Amino acid sequence: MSDDTGDIQALISQIARLPGLGPRSARRIVLQLIRKRSGQMAQLASLMSQVAENARECVICGNITEQETCSICRDDLRATGEICVVTDVADLWALERGRAFRGRYHVLGGSLSALDEVGPEELRIPDLVRRIPEEHVTEVILALAATVEGQTTAHYIAEALEGSGVTVTGLAQGVPIGGELDYLDDGTITAALRARRRI
Amino acid sequence: MSDDTGDIQALISQIARLPGLGPRSARRIVLQLIRKRSGQMAQLASLMSQVAENARECVICGNITEQETCSICRDDLRATGEICVVTDVADLWALERGRAFRGRYHVLGGSLSALDEVGPEELRIPDLVRRIPEEHVTEVILALAATVEGQTTAHYIAEALEGSGVTVTGLAQGVPIGGELDYLDDGTITAALRARRRI
Repeated sequence: MSDDTGDIQALISQIARLPGLGPRSARRIVLQLIRKRSGQMAQLASLMSQVAENARECVICGNITEQETCSICRDDLRATGEICVVTDVADLWALERGRAFRGRYHVLGGSLSALDEVGPEELRIPDLVRRIPEEHVTEVILALAATVEGQTTAHYIAEALEGSGVTVTGLAQGVPIGGELDYLDDGTITAALRARRRI
Repeated sequence: MSDDTGDIQALISQIARLPGLGPRSARRIVLQLIRKRSGQMAQLASLMSQVAENARECVICGNITEQETCSICRDDLRATGEICVVTDVADLWALERGRAFRGRYHVLGGSLSALDEVGPEELRIPDLVRRIPEEHVTEVILALAATVEGQTTAHYIAEALEGSGVTVTGLAQGVPIGGELDYLDDGTITAALRARRRI
């Protein structure tokens, strides 16, 4: 805007580049931070530089951690012989919020894509294959997206694990909890019908 | 989520408290920042702590600046004898983006509100009255919101400036550029009709 607010303008355009934000929301955020700058902004800045310095990927599973390995890989109670394969750390967090899975994870960090030159190496699939005997894994649960990329990746992993003696499973597909049939797409209804169960 | 990501979780909940954001968007933002942490995150953190330290209110007009007075108040070319009164710095920025106004500003920082105990002192209205003779002001433009609070504040300022010899004006009300009548509220249509002009 004006020459003596260079840092403020730079901060706004940095924030506007974050996912889901734009110039308008960035301006609102920066104005609120400036109003409360003594408290909120300084705190946010120091947290951010701390995380920027300390956050790293767990060398075993790819989860985000502030140590060499993540708390899940360090927790002996979670050595259940089950590994849940997820695309992203966000998916891992979603599963942890559900508290349904008590085993360990393997974070791919993306999906196989010839177009973007993402191959098995980039997705740490060889690491996953190595973990099977090392951690006495009996079941690999592929919790990947129900998209073409996700399913391609799932097929590749299932093939890579063939002969390792591990059971490979995938998430059930069907009607989501609270879902009304009227609003579901045809693919989901067809999948749910095919996978129907006796009740 | 887990004990060794305390800083990351704290960062997410800090970001989730920003205007327009929530836990889900905060998680997305933090994950993206962690992925690019060497660059974007460290840069954002240092910008933020710089702004937290340097940003302040211009002692004359209340605009945000990194010096004692803002660049608009320091710019002699903008001593046009016009002061535009705005509720918030966001409104000042919006007017500056429009490049239509070349005078100076006075930022109230809110609207009069008996309920929230916001009186004329909090809104720096006495400062505005003092500026009239000091800066040889001839016109005060009230660019306040067309809401009850905005209009109450406008009336109060108009009264406070009575006898100072200054012309007090307000923004025109009417059909916004690109606005279709069919989608406008009754109040706007009535106001636009009352203020109709010969073309």
